[in-house]
Amino acid sequence: MLENKKEEKFAEWYIELVEKAELMDYSPVQGSMIIRPRAYAIWQAVQDVLNAKMKADGVENAYFPIFIPENLLKKEAEHFEGFSPEVAWVTHGGNEQLGERLALRPTSETIMYVQFSKWIRSHRDLPLKINQWCNIIRWDTKALKPFLRTREFLWQEGHTAHATKEEAEEMVLKALDWYRVLCEEYLCIPVLLGKKGKNETFPGADYTTTIETLMPDGKALQAGTSHLLGQNFAKMFDIKFKDARSEEQFAWQTSWGVSTRLIGALAMMHSDNKGLVLPPKVASLQVVIVPITGGGDDSAMVLQAAGRMEKTLMDAGITVKTDNRDDKTPGFKYNYWEARGVPLRLEIGFRELAQRGATAARRDTGEKDFVSEEKIVQICEGLLEQIQENLFNKAKSFVKANIHTARDFTDFKAILDERKGFVMSPWCGDPRCEEAIKEETSATIRLIPFNDEPHGKCVMCGRDALHTAFFARSY
Amino acid sequence: MLENKKEEKFAEWYIELVEKAELMDYSPVQGSMIIRPRAYAIWQAVQDVLNAKMKADGVENAYFPIFIPENLLKKEAEHFEGFSPEVAWVTHGGNEQLGERLALRPTSETIMYVQFSKWIRSHRDLPLKINQWCNIIRWDTKALKPFLRTREFLWQEGHTAHATKEEAEEMVLKALDWYRVLCEEYLCIPVLLGKKGKNETFPGADYTTTIETLMPDGKALQAGTSHLLGQNFAKMFDIKFKDARSEEQFAWQTSWGVSTRLIGALAMMHSDNKGLVLPPKVASLQVVIVPITGGGDDSAMVLQAAGRMEKTLMDAGITVKTDNRDDKTPGFKYNYWEARGVPLRLEIGFRELAQRGATAARRDTGEKDFVSEEKIVQICEGLLEQIQENLFNKAKSFVKANIHTARDFTDFKAILDERKGFVMSPWCGDPRCEEAIKEETSATIRLIPFNDEPHGKCVMCGRDALHTAFFARSY
Repeated sequence: MLENKKEEKFAEWYIELVEKAELMDYSPVQGSMIIRPRAYAIWQAVQDVLNAKMKADGVENAYFPIFIPENLLKKEAEHFEGFSPEVAWVTHGGNEQLGERLALRPTSETIMYVQFSKWIRSHRDLPLKINQWCNIIRWDTKALKPFLRTREFLWQEGHTAHATKEEAEEMVLKALDWYRVLCEEYLCIPVLLGKKGKNETFPGADYTTTIETLMPDGKALQAGTSHLLGQNFAKMFDIKFKDARSEEQFAWQTSWGVSTRLIGALAMMHSDNKGLVLPPKVASLQVVIVPITGGGDDSAMVLQAAGRMEKTLMDAGITVKTDNRDDKTPGFKYNYWEARGVPLRLEIGFRELAQRGATAARRDTGEKDFVSEEKIVQICEGLLEQIQENLFNKAKSFVKANIHTARDFTDFKAILDERKGFVMSPWCGDPRCEEAIKEETSATIRLIPFNDEPHGKCVMCGRDALHTAFFARSY
Repeated sequence: MLENKKEEKFAEWYIELVEKAELMDYSPVQGSMIIRPRAYAIWQAVQDVLNAKMKADGVENAYFPIFIPENLLKKEAEHFEGFSPEVAWVTHGGNEQLGERLALRPTSETIMYVQFSKWIRSHRDLPLKINQWCNIIRWDTKALKPFLRTREFLWQEGHTAHATKEEAEEMVLKALDWYRVLCEEYLCIPVLLGKKGKNETFPGADYTTTIETLMPDGKALQAGTSHLLGQNFAKMFDIKFKDARSEEQFAWQTSWGVSTRLIGALAMMHSDNKGLVLPPKVASLQVVIVPITGGGDDSAMVLQAAGRMEKTLMDAGITVKTDNRDDKTPGFKYNYWEARGVPLRLEIGFRELAQRGATAARRDTGEKDFVSEEKIVQICEGLLEQIQENLFNKAKSFVKANIHTARDFTDFKAILDERKGFVMSPWCGDPRCEEAIKEETSATIRLIPFNDEPHGKCVMCGRDALHTAFFARSY
């Protein structure tokens, strides 16, 4: 059991959770952290899902330098302005001071697009679709939080160039949908899709699309973004192509990314006071077998049965491990693996031996059921599917139940303070109203739904609404 | 055809090769480069091979920060001395000067072992086996060369802790053998295994083992290393465990790594004046189909046959693509894909159509053969295997033919100047002789074979030999 309760001290509970579940550890450098194997395995699952989707769509993986010369980063003014407060600078190599200081990439548009302008000549070179998996440095000074806000994190960044705006916009939505599938079908994190307001748009982009979710404490979390860069960078970096009629055109570009913050979102969303809860599809260990022995001949038979079932499950493609430690009690082992989020536990003692089976305990609900050895694969597969489904449905109901509608600004503030979650409100479209709301409530526009059907008056200024926006306090 | 010939201007040929084959591109920061998709795909193949081996052995992937505080890097004196001339330093985050400057990891022993000392308490926590895939920064001032010497590169670094020296030594050799298999069976790079002399030992290690190969210009190349760190770091970082009798012991450690320099070694080893040659097992595209059409009804049938064969090969798990570009001639396409190293080309024209098949052209030998559509999978699989084998055998013969024995130091120098390659020589074991040889010839001890049977007198000083060492000039 964690010392902090999720319902009472959410922030403390999360910090205790990620450390005790061995997802992370603190490093000697403030604001950077160690991603431990159990968390990194989730990241590898994310990589597998996205790599498969990207490959099928012709996106190729590559690697660009972490160093960006200051002058290059400055090339797109709005972009530089957006990122420069958070840039870490390298000034010395060995014992030499560098002629020009180098930024550690806060994102890679600038360093990549120098190359894009060399690689793209003709419409036949388009679309160009490049992705990289890499570390990102942002010298954030806000309160740091494991996975959710750290000065170094891992991400993938996709960068594409297209002949037309239509193709680029299609790519923006396609990437966003990959992220939706990743979050909902693998991480069991339900998301809302939409556009950002101007204040939250990526620096240098025409517009930003986003997937947003809601954490159990009622704060929103941005899980991934996909930007239409338009021709802004193409004009700065001279990314031109000859079209079919040999006329020169600027390319249309997109960029999109998800990061290791998803690991934090996942942990926060599903876990409980016993520790981590992991969706079976991304758990590096899906089933743990705990043999319950008392010494003597029967013990050997229990261990034998455990080994047999482990092998059967493994052969069926389920990741499974038997906890054979002889210096730990079964109770200790239950707690140990529950804290670490293993979706399913099989207990095998004398009673189970006699009945030729095992007792299966679900991590998500705690429910226990007898499983006959004969049908063990089929039943375990079924249970894992049910756990995956249950985690998603629970999260989905939670998010749905926390989308509120505000009648007026008094109501708006009351909802944010008392009920938390998203507040759906008419908004005039004026960034000044967005700013005023943020100042008074700390809430920002998390998204404007794609199928936006505005009606009513702006919750702030009372003018006619241009959008129905989802406001929330956020991570 | 490349402008520089491999036989005449090797160094220029290599530079032209890696650029024209689209393996790399230069970045705006001197000494760092872009790893383009064709090269990154090779790196992903390396990752797949090693991840499978590591996973089976219980090595877990994780991620540690790129930032190492100066004080921490200094903790192991020899280690710091070895790396500090090449360290890049971060001094500013955003607009703030940092209290202590941060090194960008030149290797991760120090930052990892702080954690190891927290994670290891009992002999039951051992062995601990952690690996990370990451970028590495070494501010090298020597002549930079794509893939072989760059200021940023990618690598994996395995770090383990064990209860006994024996187990650690076993791990050192196991990792080295993984590297041997990777190089020989996948990259077709034959390697020699052995230990380094003191001068080339990893800073802070008890000893370093290595796999070495020979490039076509007769210079040796270190392809991977595996170090026994002994208890040196354990003592500095206080990595202790209670053994079975509850007595405190320092852990025994190893570290080992291979990097993206393997991509350069691969390209250098097999390629020719037409461009890149890739072993089928690591080629992201194994077969390219070039339809030869002349317009009219027959053209449609050629394209149909090409599509059919593409599908058949794809279904059999072969990576294949049809080059359908209508603005390029077949001849252009042959050159294009040869430059980019595709192992096998299938040409399909009217003649092939009439015979219900294709003409297969091998990239390695240029040999052409008719392939009937009926047996296309079987024959292509066979040809790909033959290419893989042929590349390895050719390279192996080359390395073998360039291991020379020197009668005396005059002979030693003559071999290095005229015949290049490795010179096997008796050596007294004194680092001063190693130094003297290096000063006079630029050759270093690349390795001392494990099955070292010294005899004769040191080639430098004439004293009794302690080892038979392999000397060479190297990358």
